[in-house]
Amino acid sequence: MTDTAALLERLQLLEDRLRLVEDTQAIHAVLTAYGPAVDAGDADAVGELWTQDAVYDVDVRVMEGRDAIMEMVRTRPHQDYIEGGCGHLLDPVHIRVDGDTAVATCHSLLLRRDAGSDSFRVWRVSANRFELVRAGGRWRIRRRTSRLLDGRTEARDLLARAAR
Amino acid sequence: MTDTAALLERLQLLEDRLRLVEDTQAIHAVLTAYGPAVDAGDADAVGELWTQDAVYDVDVRVMEGRDAIMEMVRTRPHQDYIEGGCGHLLDPVHIRVDGDTAVATCHSLLLRRDAGSDSFRVWRVSANRFELVRAGGRWRIRRRTSRLLDGRTEARDLLARAAR
Amino acid sequence: MTDTAALLERLQLLEDRLRLVEDTQAIHAVLTAYGPAVDAGDADAVGELWTQDAVYDVDVRVMEGRDAIMEMVRTRPHQDYIEGGCGHLLDPVHIRVDGDTAVATCHSLLLRRDAGSDSFRVWRVSANRFELVRAGGRWRIRRRTSRLLDGRTEARDLLARAAR
Repeated sequence: MTDTAALLERLQLLEDRLRLVEDTQAIHAVLTAYGPAVDAGDADAVGELWTQDAVYDVDVRVMEGRDAIMEMVRTRPHQDYIEGGCGHLLDPVHIRVDGDTAVATCHSLLLRRDAGSDSFRVWRVSANRFELVRAGGRWRIRRRTSRLLDGRTEARDLLARAAR
Repeated sequence: MTDTAALLERLQLLEDRLRLVEDTQAIHAVLTAYGPAVDAGDADAVGELWTQDAVYDVDVRVMEGRDAIMEMVRTRPHQDYIEGGCGHLLDPVHIRVDGDTAVATCHSLLLRRDAGSDSFRVWRVSANRFELVRAGGRWRIRRRTSRLLDGRTEARDLLARAAR
Repeated sequence: MTDTAALLERLQLLEDRLRLVEDTQAIHAVLTAYGPAVDAGDADAVGELWTQDAVYDVDVRVMEGRDAIMEMVRTRPHQDYIEGGCGHLLDPVHIRVDGDTAVATCHSLLLRRDAGSDSFRVWRVSANRFELVRAGGRWRIRRRTSRLLDGRTEARDLLARAAR
């Protein structure tokens, strides 16, 4: 191999590796934008993070399509949570990128101000699986599945899939 | 364009992209150093993370200048929290870098050991906005604004700004 | 220096910087795989994250070797926590890489479903120090030390070491 060919190969490899690193950071930015947007009650900012045909499957309800997810932000009970004081938090996210798709796994917390005390209560602790897709040059959530960690097998199965 | 010019352009682009990725990691390292330092009661380590003229605006008080922030670590009520058992935690941080400044948004938790039980209580859940600056080759916090998520508009507004 | 030598030097520098960024992401991926695996009760997935001779030193017990850590996942009381509903969470991790070793510092939470209520309680809030090593081309945990944040000096000392 000539020197130039070897050099171009190193350059190409660097570009490929850097793209993977950037993808991981970009996905992290999408996922960490969700909590602030949903606690702000900013339906437009929430909507931006999902594909048009996204599905958000929480155990208690399934939202189909970006519009349904935005509608959830604008309405009750979500607006009640915000007014009473709430925080939607994640813990550090495990991200696996595979070309133009990615899977992210983590826990989520829904904390709510406890009326009549000066503290918050931990209302929901859930297992989460996000399936993301690169579309139009940016990453968006195509599916989020959340299951309450109350001992049910489904939540455990969801978490076990992170390692595979 | 000659081959060499094209190659130098690719190299320059790689360097610029990598710098942005490194900046994001460096800012993450500054923000994740805060919790351990403040729960250790290590005022010097806390001070290192802020600019000399930094402002830390929590709803219940405003600290102006690095010295005031370090003084907070050394005194009550902070020392009482540490002795009773406490944890200052963040959730995953949304980071936007713009040249030599950056904005980071996340939730924070202040957990305190509940005397008389074997558990902790979630005492404060707050919205946080960090404004950072690159100075002397490293990132430091120039301003942190925290607002309790108890339903107040101010906390929601702060979170909404993450998306913009 | 010839043009080629200068160019090769830039390329080498890029490769070195990128490797550090990738190492930080890879370590983050190892640490964020732990919580999902342990809450799934997946002893094999948990075991993969540790070196064969790893030590997991929690205040209430010390596990020596990967097999002992996997045994913990398979047995009580851990299996009881899972069945009753639990979440093992971290907060964002401070990572320092030094060649083929690394130190990671963060808080951890053990949340448990509160029988007889519709909420969870914050059972343990701990200070954590992970010592990792690159072996066989991947990062693994060689030692994890956890100390309950109940005011004890040991937990504070562990956190203070993050900054050094």
